[in-house]
Amino acid sequence: MTKESVLGRIVRIFEVFGTDTPAVSVSELARRADLHVATASRMVEQLVGHGWLQRDADRKVRIGMRLWELASRASPALPLREAAMPYMEDLHAVVRHHTQLGVLEGDEVLFLERLSTRHAVVNLTRIAGRLPLHVSSSGEVLLAHAPVELQERVLAGPLRGYTPNTVTDPKVLRARLADIRRDGFACCAGYVDERATGIAVPVRGPGGGVVAALSVVVPNDANARSQIPALRAAALGIGRAMGLSLSENRL
Amino acid sequence: MTKESVLGRIVRIFEVFGTDTPAVSVSELARRADLHVATASRMVEQLVGHGWLQRDADRKVRIGMRLWELASRASPALPLREAAMPYMEDLHAVVRHHTQLGVLEGDEVLFLERLSTRHAVVNLTRIAGRLPLHVSSSGEVLLAHAPVELQERVLAGPLRGYTPNTVTDPKVLRARLADIRRDGFACCAGYVDERATGIAVPVRGPGGGVVAALSVVVPNDANARSQIPALRAAALGIGRAMGLSLSENRL
Repeated sequence: MTKESVLGRIVRIFEVFGTDTPAVSVSELARRADLHVATASRMVEQLVGHGWLQRDADRKVRIGMRLWELASRASPALPLREAAMPYMEDLHAVVRHHTQLGVLEGDEVLFLERLSTRHAVVNLTRIAGRLPLHVSSSGEVLLAHAPVELQERVLAGPLRGYTPNTVTDPKVLRARLADIRRDGFACCAGYVDERATGIAVPVRGPGGGVVAALSVVVPNDANARSQIPALRAAALGIGRAMGLSLSENRL
Repeated sequence: MTKESVLGRIVRIFEVFGTDTPAVSVSELARRADLHVATASRMVEQLVGHGWLQRDADRKVRIGMRLWELASRASPALPLREAAMPYMEDLHAVVRHHTQLGVLEGDEVLFLERLSTRHAVVNLTRIAGRLPLHVSSSGEVLLAHAPVELQERVLAGPLRGYTPNTVTDPKVLRARLADIRRDGFACCAGYVDERATGIAVPVRGPGGGVVAALSVVVPNDANARSQIPALRAAALGIGRAMGLSLSENRL
């Protein structure tokens, strides 16, 4: 067995776990990671020994706190998150709806943080969860400022609709991206769920490039757009906290 | 080379990274992980391929966003954090000082979350950071409710002082733990830094056991204790959000 395959197996083991699969039995883990049960069992044993996996009282296996700690204490997202959190809290206190921070990862938006109020409107996004770029306001903002090659790859499809409101026509999406660059925000009414509207603005980092999207998810009604000024102000604050000069800092 | 040693090497590589070491060169990584440069270089290459590590523009290596995502989306801390965040935000809005959530990990307190205001008092704790149990209010609360064997191990020392105020006498610490169980809070004036006071209360999970400590770090002055009622109310709210019945929910 080569070293490559050991790492590949470890990666496959960890990719089994997700928001909907926080804990599995070893046999289920072996099946999903395509490993012999004996192999999976031996590797789980070792990973538990290092704290990278842990066992529940019912013997199910889940991600270990030690792995979360290692990945979080030096996370590449930490400086952005630290700069953003005070402004996200203020924004959340004013808007009283889901307030989110997302970054471009591959061809999707990865959500780094989400602040939520009890009884807020339905919201599919989760911390460390992903959505395709064309279905969420954060994704549209990130796509509007992404390299042209990525834009063309996404526009080439397929563009799956989550609701009848999701933009799945590449011509319409291309025009929207130009509007978003001009207007400085994306407003997606009912794209992910018909009851909710996502509104996102770009967050610029040192040098002026777009490093993240700041968004809120509010009820899909006539008031949704009234949140835009508060969002823009919070995004400018985050940019300033990251050391952006006034002249670079724009929406 | 056995499979065990490959996993051991991967673990050593990831343990190099920390809050003060977010990015290192491959040669520095090899030195700190005690690996040949050629071995480290080959493993880094593979880990970058899986997104578990990533390379900066200056070729330094850091934790990959993919590892953070895998560790976070199914983190064992996620349900607790999700239950706690609305209450932590409310508490932070009222107290306007560092607001923290910590859990017992080994013989230390591991901080899962920290909300901070700009220009708040000095605070050593960080998200995914650790402190010894006897030096922080969160640690004292967790220790007061920990299994007796752990208490005895910590009391057997050594108990290092961070300031002249840190309790380093095991007799005094033992008496404090009894007080904390009786009073329902720990108040540590100037333990970690003479300018700051930490105040912590226990958070109880389903079944009534203490699963976390909720704390604030405020200036070390006569007002510090006025925060205790707000802390206690927030901790009860978190317990209720986790499904604790009224009769189980106590401080």
